[in-house]
Amino acid sequence: MNPPFALLPITEPTLLLDELKCKKNIERMVQKAAKHNLIFRPHFKTHQSKHIAGWFRKKGVNKITVSSLKMARYFAKDGWDDITVAFPVNMLEIDTIRQLAGKIKLNLLVESLESVTFLSKNLTSTVSIFIKIDIGYHRTGILPENTPLIDNILEEIKNSSTLKFAGFLGHAGHSYQAKNKQEIQNIHTTSIGMLQKLKERYKSIFPHLILSTGDTPTCSVMDEFTGTDEIRPGNFIFYDLTQWAIGACNFDDIAVVMACPIVAKHQSRNELIIYGGGVHFSKDHLVLKNGTKTIFGKVVSLTNSGWQGLNNDENYLSKLSQEHGTVTVERHIFDKYKVGDVIGIMPVHSCLTANLTKSYLTLDGKLIERL
Amino acid sequence: MNPPFALLPITEPTLLLDELKCKKNIERMVQKAAKHNLIFRPHFKTHQSKHIAGWFRKKGVNKITVSSLKMARYFAKDGWDDITVAFPVNMLEIDTIRQLAGKIKLNLLVESLESVTFLSKNLTSTVSIFIKIDIGYHRTGILPENTPLIDNILEEIKNSSTLKFAGFLGHAGHSYQAKNKQEIQNIHTTSIGMLQKLKERYKSIFPHLILSTGDTPTCSVMDEFTGTDEIRPGNFIFYDLTQWAIGACNFDDIAVVMACPIVAKHQSRNELIIYGGGVHFSKDHLVLKNGTKTIFGKVVSLTNSGWQGLNNDENYLSKLSQEHGTVTVERHIFDKYKVGDVIGIMPVHSCLTANLTKSYLTLDGKLIERL
Repeated sequence: MNPPFALLPITEPTLLLDELKCKKNIERMVQKAAKHNLIFRPHFKTHQSKHIAGWFRKKGVNKITVSSLKMARYFAKDGWDDITVAFPVNMLEIDTIRQLAGKIKLNLLVESLESVTFLSKNLTSTVSIFIKIDIGYHRTGILPENTPLIDNILEEIKNSSTLKFAGFLGHAGHSYQAKNKQEIQNIHTTSIGMLQKLKERYKSIFPHLILSTGDTPTCSVMDEFTGTDEIRPGNFIFYDLTQWAIGACNFDDIAVVMACPIVAKHQSRNELIIYGGGVHFSKDHLVLKNGTKTIFGKVVSLTNSGWQGLNNDENYLSKLSQEHGTVTVERHIFDKYKVGDVIGIMPVHSCLTANLTKSYLTLDGKLIERL
Repeated sequence: MNPPFALLPITEPTLLLDELKCKKNIERMVQKAAKHNLIFRPHFKTHQSKHIAGWFRKKGVNKITVSSLKMARYFAKDGWDDITVAFPVNMLEIDTIRQLAGKIKLNLLVESLESVTFLSKNLTSTVSIFIKIDIGYHRTGILPENTPLIDNILEEIKNSSTLKFAGFLGHAGHSYQAKNKQEIQNIHTTSIGMLQKLKERYKSIFPHLILSTGDTPTCSVMDEFTGTDEIRPGNFIFYDLTQWAIGACNFDDIAVVMACPIVAKHQSRNELIIYGGGVHFSKDHLVLKNGTKTIFGKVVSLTNSGWQGLNNDENYLSKLSQEHGTVTVERHIFDKYKVGDVIGIMPVHSCLTANLTKSYLTLDGKLIERL
């Protein structure tokens, strides 16, 4: 098998980006948000790239989500002026919060009275506040039945000259553990129900409050968003094997693949050793075949126009050390490759894999920088 | 609990480095190598820092190991002129190999005839070649009994004007999975035995050939190295919970801890939410208590002079998402911390955690850059 991408300068693990697939993923989500009359505030933590952000801007997107103040600063510098930091307020970064609040419409998440009081005391510019609600994921957020705490936080916001109440925000992160579309749908229905009750309770005092929710699995699978005002999916820009496994995307929607040099072959084990390890993929894995197989990625065959899936579970990244990856393949695939060739590995979790690269390489050879 | 390190500028996840512990780890290994008359060629993939490399240089170290040509270039630029790249030759990086071979004593690993032939055809400067032997880890390397292949490779080296045979190199990576010191010792004895047989076989033709082995567990635990000529441990510079769990180090030898802001508390679950996620720690984990508990790190209490372990398995990093970490603690620890405090997390795998940081912060406030 000749090295594909003969025109691309691949000498080390390189994250290939299929720009067309990526733009289709954006278009599909923009359309869905429009159809359901939802505010579309995509999460930019997956791509973390000004250039890719521009593809959203062209589609009319002007509100975004990020998961750190560092990302907020990066995108604010690029002209994004309505940013939600979907992470509990980190008091130790108050200087950055102050700077950003003076420049853009900054939306922050709180889930404790201490945080609101702290912000109220330490800000001079206006900031919008979402109260983070735990809609079942049990990572962060206030339980929806804890209305005494919510009351106290709202009271503190009302008494503040800089804080404005924006609404309730939830993240159904447990949808990533769903086993199929039906489970995703159930999680969606239950979690939006929790938020709606809160809206009912508080809308007479805060008639403009919104409900913000919508992770990638839910936004990809559902076609019913009654009660939701705003969605914030992120991973859909690239998708990955985790999303594919739960039915949130098709294999052909996945827009990134790591191109890796083959550096050794071991015929007795049908294993290819690639330059591509934990420092390139991160270590998220996927369990296939009822727990009998753990994979860190799937083999795709690189072609002149992109890549082609092998359409089975027999060719996969089976082990990772710091720089080495072990790829277990069927014998006929093993025989196709030689040392010095480049092989494609589709990542299990595109957010963490993308985070480990400095840039994306498009199929026509453009290098796209990221934070 | 007051924020510790009041003098250090911690606002986001920050990898603290205890310089004294680190230097003690270096000193101990330098002494051991000297005592056993071994060539000490430490692996620099863990720290990847010119500054820390300088601490080795002061102890007389002048030969090093790295795991990528990128690292080789970085350290060569800093004046290191005898570097082993402990990774199968990546043909696609031949330009970099050529440049380095022209400047320093470059030692490369081969495990196939194709690679040696390729190097022989494509080099103009001298390069030393180690044949990589699979001493039981079964990741890379030629099986020691495959002497026909070894013969062919040696023949190719002899016929080349640029390649020089350096010896046999093995990596007992399976020692990381050992459960105790006895298992580490058994692995050491078996693997060095395999290499010694090869030395016996080839020493009449190559009287200067050396045997290079020695991972961190083996080099830390063993005090018997008969047959070994060179050791290449790397992780010992920082150690981590994985090494501690298999008995390769004491808890007090671990020289790095991630300082993380606390951003939320959940009393009903005794959980602290920290700013510190998969993009800071990577996702290697450790299984404790016969498989009942998976941890991504252990809580240490930060003090004015460093940190203090809590000496049990009840306070640990239990979950990781991209930027969030969930820390599960005992109630009395939970009560000690408030939102806005900084907590210390000792990493499971220091190589991958260090790889995700741009710099180390020493306890006296120096920022140490890395690749």
